[in-house]
Amino acid sequence: MSEALRIGMDIGGSKTAAVALDLSGAVVASTQLLTERGPDGVLDTAEHAIRELARLTARSAREFASVGIGIPGQIDRELGVVRNAYNIDVARLALAELLSESTGLTVTLDNDVTAAAIGAAHLMGLSGTVAYLNLGTGLSAGFVVDGAPLRGSHGVAGEIGHLAVDRLERPCPCGQRGCLETVASGSALKTYWPAGGDHPGRILLSAIAAGDAEARTAFEYLVRGAANCVRLLVLALDPHTVVIGGGLRLLGDPLLDGIRTTLDEWSAASPFLTELQLGERVQVLPEDSSAAAVGAALAGIS
Amino acid sequence: MSEALRIGMDIGGSKTAAVALDLSGAVVASTQLLTERGPDGVLDTAEHAIRELARLTARSAREFASVGIGIPGQIDRELGVVRNAYNIDVARLALAELLSESTGLTVTLDNDVTAAAIGAAHLMGLSGTVAYLNLGTGLSAGFVVDGAPLRGSHGVAGEIGHLAVDRLERPCPCGQRGCLETVASGSALKTYWPAGGDHPGRILLSAIAAGDAEARTAFEYLVRGAANCVRLLVLALDPHTVVIGGGLRLLGDPLLDGIRTTLDEWSAASPFLTELQLGERVQVLPEDSSAAAVGAALAGIS
Repeated sequence: MSEALRIGMDIGGSKTAAVALDLSGAVVASTQLLTERGPDGVLDTAEHAIRELARLTARSAREFASVGIGIPGQIDRELGVVRNAYNIDVARLALAELLSESTGLTVTLDNDVTAAAIGAAHLMGLSGTVAYLNLGTGLSAGFVVDGAPLRGSHGVAGEIGHLAVDRLERPCPCGQRGCLETVASGSALKTYWPAGGDHPGRILLSAIAAGDAEARTAFEYLVRGAANCVRLLVLALDPHTVVIGGGLRLLGDPLLDGIRTTLDEWSAASPFLTELQLGERVQVLPEDSSAAAVGAALAGIS
Repeated sequence: MSEALRIGMDIGGSKTAAVALDLSGAVVASTQLLTERGPDGVLDTAEHAIRELARLTARSAREFASVGIGIPGQIDRELGVVRNAYNIDVARLALAELLSESTGLTVTLDNDVTAAAIGAAHLMGLSGTVAYLNLGTGLSAGFVVDGAPLRGSHGVAGEIGHLAVDRLERPCPCGQRGCLETVASGSALKTYWPAGGDHPGRILLSAIAAGDAEARTAFEYLVRGAANCVRLLVLALDPHTVVIGGGLRLLGDPLLDGIRTTLDEWSAASPFLTELQLGERVQVLPEDSSAAAVGAALAGIS
């Protein structure tokens, strides 16, 4: 009989990444497909991904050991239900039960950012307390302490994007003003730098290089907001490492340098902050890491 | 032979509380004494407390099972060293080793607010994720998740008092501006409402009742800052319960009502916040709870 493989899946607004892990946690197969939206579409996508991994690993789908799914929205892990996942057009979906019925496999759900935190800690070999800062369409964080995720009481741990503390006091769709997500997220870029189009992060740096003053301002706000998040995460949880992930990590060194420079400026005025060595705790998730899919597979059995 | 008792101690700026716990975690003896300052004074105080608990429980000091100490400052648990505990005049003290040498007992140290979080969860019978918000001379938090404290990588987890997000942007001794501690703490009251004297919390409500407009403003800032902390703690860690502790909890119902009213006002504008049920998560540590001493005793063996 072939070795038991665990499936992990990251169902995002546009794409779904899926991996199969062996018992050691190594990725032995991976695939990526477009996410179909709505409850039926999401279920179809997940089934499709499992069939594709079965084909890639030359086995029947029923031979997999488990399926873990990272997905946006509010997650009830016990019931296996996802709610309010607006960017995939899902108001409520009993995804674990339905997928388990159709595949015969054990299925667990997790918040996508929590899954990414678990995956990042595993892939990057990080121990102790790890805070994962997701700079994606939205802004939120996930936490892993000594290998175990912190999920909180209602599955909303890490929703720091809705801390209403930014001095610009921009209105947020959540109803508050000044949420960190209104300055440090893909949705903020899209709203306040319309020239950037649908994927502003991809052209932001070239626009700045070409002298676009509004692009530069948008980037500066992004950097300040992200630095604010790092300071917040360190003061709240004192993590060994803060990992920057999410789509905007493609901004790479300019983003990381900007965050560190901002933290250094704040620290220059404060011996207290200096001693916390904020900048030294920050790392960026390597490109092409399927952190959320890997983390979802690992969380599927914990 | 008598039952093994664990000692817990809360060494504060003015007073030291000490308790002896039986194996079930019940307090069987307690004492309180003035804290002597400086390294020698602190060591003397701890020895004195142990002798007093031995007398109260009719045994020799060497019969105690362990000693756990909650103390302000930066704690290195492994080395048993406390540093930068300015309000007891200690720059650095190898308290665990020295006290262990003089008493023959096993001694462990913990941050006083982390110890209070452990003790509050135990005394109030709270499970799941507990955030303890210490409104004392300073402002900070401690966390317990499923019975285990979160201490972070360098013993500074919970230092949310130095999040520089308050719109008044008052200067903070830490070097930043707008730290939450500059509005929501005993030191903020003392600095910005000098009429309150050395213990402004004790006369704040009567001053407001007598029409002191500055006292009312100081109270309003305190309430807003504390509510900001509650929102922050819920968005970051999604605790089942936020316990308000520290000396300012003596403000009682007006403080708790003020915090809940502020959270309700913010929630009225935000369906997102409404769903988080912020106000319902808040409880106040009962008066006369030696939470930090009890928690230190419990942490002494974990």
